[in-house]
Amino acid sequence: MKNEFIIMGLDIGGANTDCCIYRIKDNKATLINSAKEYLPMWEKKDQLEECLHNFKKDYRIDVVIATTTAELADGYTSKKEGVFDITSKVMNVFKDSIVKFVTFNGLKDFKYVKNNPLDAAAANWIATSHMISKISSDCIFMDMGTTTTDIIPIKNSIESARGHSDLERLCSGELVYTGMLRTNVATITNKIPIRDEKATVSSELFSTTADVHHILGNIKEEEYTCSTSDNEDTSIDSCKRRLARVICADLDMLTDEEINNIARHVEKEQINQITNALKKVHEHSKLDDVIITNYADAPICKKAACNLGLNITSLNDYLTGDSLNVSPTIGCVQMYIDEICMDIQLLNSVG
Amino acid sequence: MKNEFIIMGLDIGGANTDCCIYRIKDNKATLINSAKEYLPMWEKKDQLEECLHNFKKDYRIDVVIATTTAELADGYTSKKEGVFDITSKVMNVFKDSIVKFVTFNGLKDFKYVKNNPLDAAAANWIATSHMISKISSDCIFMDMGTTTTDIIPIKNSIESARGHSDLERLCSGELVYTGMLRTNVATITNKIPIRDEKATVSSELFSTTADVHHILGNIKEEEYTCSTSDNEDTSIDSCKRRLARVICADLDMLTDEEINNIARHVEKEQINQITNALKKVHEHSKLDDVIITNYADAPICKKAACNLGLNITSLNDYLTGDSLNVSPTIGCVQMYIDEICMDIQLLNSVG
Repeated sequence: MKNEFIIMGLDIGGANTDCCIYRIKDNKATLINSAKEYLPMWEKKDQLEECLHNFKKDYRIDVVIATTTAELADGYTSKKEGVFDITSKVMNVFKDSIVKFVTFNGLKDFKYVKNNPLDAAAANWIATSHMISKISSDCIFMDMGTTTTDIIPIKNSIESARGHSDLERLCSGELVYTGMLRTNVATITNKIPIRDEKATVSSELFSTTADVHHILGNIKEEEYTCSTSDNEDTSIDSCKRRLARVICADLDMLTDEEINNIARHVEKEQINQITNALKKVHEHSKLDDVIITNYADAPICKKAACNLGLNITSLNDYLTGDSLNVSPTIGCVQMYIDEICMDIQLLNSVG
Repeated sequence: MKNEFIIMGLDIGGANTDCCIYRIKDNKATLINSAKEYLPMWEKKDQLEECLHNFKKDYRIDVVIATTTAELADGYTSKKEGVFDITSKVMNVFKDSIVKFVTFNGLKDFKYVKNNPLDAAAANWIATSHMISKISSDCIFMDMGTTTTDIIPIKNSIESARGHSDLERLCSGELVYTGMLRTNVATITNKIPIRDEKATVSSELFSTTADVHHILGNIKEEEYTCSTSDNEDTSIDSCKRRLARVICADLDMLTDEEINNIARHVEKEQINQITNALKKVHEHSKLDDVIITNYADAPICKKAACNLGLNITSLNDYLTGDSLNVSPTIGCVQMYIDEICMDIQLLNSVG
């Protein structure tokens, strides 16, 4: 390997496609770009190549390490079909680069993935846990993203998850399908307390967790990066109107305090979801140290870990703001660096 | 009133707009048409007038009695705005007819509704319960539609509901936001048993109750009248593929028996939702007789009533197939007939 090259980490998710670009020179890595693009694959999978071209445009990329979870999206009749389509598109765009994919058996080329597509399906947490193992050899890593939450046990510097596939991980608690922005409020709670009564909730997609967390100040308006459920704006007033609709109400019928209480109730129930999953992972792994990252500053995972009395460290201490939101892509790059036996750590060594 | 006229009942819901048309002559009512059009108001409210023109086209309609629940839909910032928009559109299309709207204070004209829009918001169950009171003066009426379920207590031939608005009815159990076709499976249950484990479910809109009830044979394919969550076809195979996705799986990963078990689990949880609500209504009303209608032949409400040991009658015994799926519109017509003191019952007198 020449001693200077440019490497891109790619995380192609169902809702967001993320990337980071590092320049590696003389055993030193410099983050030269990171980007997150909202690309809902269930309706816009044909725009993936364009998105990747945008990421690439100003750089001569030598190496691409990619991971995908988007094969689960509507529009693919099976995971196999999805993995093949997505990895083919990556190959098309990065014809002139070395391209490898994250699998449950380490980094593999396109030919391997074509023959073993399920090894590459939803393997992004493998990249993430590889990165985290550089911080702590024994810990539980919790990462709440826009859509899902990973809870990954790491022992002796390698992931020791009970589940591999998404289905197995939904069973083991290691994957929780709840997130900071895109989660339909109606999937988090069936009942909402209001005026000494309990209302069952509407099953429509009337409001998402982005509304809840924006109302509560957990995210700033510029962090509301997904589409709104009614295609209206992301102002606090619109968030409140959407949240009121979850119990078939509107801003004429509820006071501000009542709407804030609804938001607090949904947040509490989301913390419960995470606490239940973390409890399963903790019971199985016996690990008491957790390293946490969250989209924005919301304390969801932190409160869940507090509920169980675990020791908490924040990933913020090891990653800068730019790269924090694309951490699986950094894991991709770290996997490659380790594979070619370069001695570079992409994380700050704080702790 | 002349002794021959044509009257239309209209039920403008969030997802479906329904109508019935009766010819009234010599104290006799003949159903000359009934129709149900899937018109998702959150994206197509501008097509409502066109839809109403279609219903009207071959007839000279003398009287229109309309009810609406669509004001809750996204696209309206408040119920007031929604009621005004919808009732204005009805007025535009039926300029040459007598038009009245169902309100919590009986039938009212446009001027009243303009000044008291919330009296007309989500009042369709008033029409339905008026019709049901002709069958039984003391009963609980249960009606599971495509999207929601009404549970209405009737005492001494008048509705004796604890709630009026949707919000109040969500609290009292008299409205449950769960239905035969359009309900997101992820809002019904958080956990699904699979291979001696329990998977938490994906919070996406991957599958609806139409998939579940089609797999179980509760609805026929031609009764799958809403859009699918992935815009694919309504075959059993596609339904199974969508349902598998709720636990992040696909048809390569699950057996047929496993998918059928998931469908049965979701059905059971939906029956539980209805049972819990019915229990509230029963405890409050002390009524032991229930009259049930369901979209198609699914036994959801029946099983809920059985769970509580109540006496069950089916609305099918009183309405023909054509009109069964548009029963609130028949209630609209019955309200008008009673208001002008004609002695006509639109229901068959079986029981």
